[in-house]
Amino acid sequence: MVWCSGWQLTSAVSNAGGLGLIGAGSMYPNVLREHIVKCKEATKKPFGVNVPLLYPEIEKLMEVIVSEEVKIVFTSAGNPKTWTGFLKDRGITVVHVVSSSKFAQKSEEAGVDAVVAEGFEAGGHNGREETTTLCLVPLVCDAVKIPVIAAGGIASGRAMLAAEALGAQGVQVGTSFAASVESSAHENFKQKVVSLAEGETMLSLKSLTPVRLIKNNFYKKVFEAEERGASIEELKNILGRGRAKRGIFEGDIIEGELEIGQGASFVKAIKPAAEIVKEMWNEYLLVRKSIMA
Amino acid sequence: MVWCSGWQLTSAVSNAGGLGLIGAGSMYPNVLREHIVKCKEATKKPFGVNVPLLYPEIEKLMEVIVSEEVKIVFTSAGNPKTWTGFLKDRGITVVHVVSSSKFAQKSEEAGVDAVVAEGFEAGGHNGREETTTLCLVPLVCDAVKIPVIAAGGIASGRAMLAAEALGAQGVQVGTSFAASVESSAHENFKQKVVSLAEGETMLSLKSLTPVRLIKNNFYKKVFEAEERGASIEELKNILGRGRAKRGIFEGDIIEGELEIGQGASFVKAIKPAAEIVKEMWNEYLLVRKSIMA
Repeated sequence: MVWCSGWQLTSAVSNAGGLGLIGAGSMYPNVLREHIVKCKEATKKPFGVNVPLLYPEIEKLMEVIVSEEVKIVFTSAGNPKTWTGFLKDRGITVVHVVSSSKFAQKSEEAGVDAVVAEGFEAGGHNGREETTTLCLVPLVCDAVKIPVIAAGGIASGRAMLAAEALGAQGVQVGTSFAASVESSAHENFKQKVVSLAEGETMLSLKSLTPVRLIKNNFYKKVFEAEERGASIEELKNILGRGRAKRGIFEGDIIEGELEIGQGASFVKAIKPAAEIVKEMWNEYLLVRKSIMA
Repeated sequence: MVWCSGWQLTSAVSNAGGLGLIGAGSMYPNVLREHIVKCKEATKKPFGVNVPLLYPEIEKLMEVIVSEEVKIVFTSAGNPKTWTGFLKDRGITVVHVVSSSKFAQKSEEAGVDAVVAEGFEAGGHNGREETTTLCLVPLVCDAVKIPVIAAGGIASGRAMLAAEALGAQGVQVGTSFAASVESSAHENFKQKVVSLAEGETMLSLKSLTPVRLIKNNFYKKVFEAEERGASIEELKNILGRGRAKRGIFEGDIIEGELEIGQGASFVKAIKPAAEIVKEMWNEYLLVRKSIMA
């Protein structure tokens, strides 16, 4: 949720009954502090912060999280052993995002409170095994005793109920909120997301770090380079720096890196976060009732 | 289900309460006739034949199907317009396998009775859009009025219930039966399937026809060739002829093409088809009850 989830989206989701998460991956530590402070003003409900563990100045981020008394931290993209103890010692609930049952077990051993099992259909950074949500969630549920939150392709009440059938105790929703009214993403990005046809995202940059992107001009350049067997150095040069910011936050939908999940096929309009929560929940209840009838 | 589903597996599945399908893709027309005749002797329940529409002597296969009075045909890997009318005119129920809602609509227009929506996690041949079962099934359900059968990653009762939550009216199960006692696959192949760790299948040969394979030595050769930007001609040479037969039927698990789905992670032992059906059904009922409690 880089460049999408600031205090506006986080507080809107929490106020609507979800657990909003501030996406710290695209924030300097002082920016994160500002968002936490504003979020606390905007909601009295619980919210959390998502921290990619590969963040370069992670010590400073963690210092902000602790000093601002954040209660819940979702960690991702790194080893759960590094920070879980530090956070747990300070009374913070820790959830780690995984793409395999092996890493779910490692997370459980590291002492996290829950894991997010995120499948191949998810937007942005993704696992190398390419295990889909439908397969990953029950595998992770069988592998650990802690609660499992399903992610990847969860953009409807039907998918919520499917996740529950697979054993998940909750769902994490990214794509739908990335294109919401309260998302910090550029209007161009949101419009692009809601206009996407089926099959218009693809897992890319596999020889660097796999990431699900919209198939725009930037994607095509990467694809062509990979097709002709480009070196990792060349791919890094094509990627450059700030490519996700350029796409998601600055709205360059041609040459930016546009991270979004397959769930985009279910996102047809830019809606307030509260409406997204309500629609998903209502569909969940409706489908649940109809199946049980 | 090439090299796996002959009359033994088909009749075992039908006798257990499923709809068994003979996989004609790996059979000469006279071999298919033999399997249909034996299947009719082995079960009084309905069964069908799966026909990949790219089969070279398809007219002869269709002649066998009609003259042996097969009642149900599942078509795949081709244009549903070509044969649906012919089969429907002869009173045969036709189901077409699709990997996108666009092709589901084309199938409905062609007059098929139902579609199989097969996601990225499925074994063997696969769609270019890489849409997962979790995303594909509701998209296809929204796109057509005819019944939708979910496929890809359906190897447990939990996945069956998830498919139902997503809107499917039935499920198609491949991987679990490919490794069953009655499967015609070589014992080596079955042993390999039940011993697979998570993440040990991968979508391969994307520049030819995408196919999900076990990551064996043959897969690695293809992967390395694709990494260095090998031409389509070179890839065709690496693939050669009869590679799937060599792997699945003859048991060369090193150099054969081993088609199987991500659902293999749930297949822990070589079981009779009837036991697989019973276990899935019982788990489905159990999970359904526990969710509704």
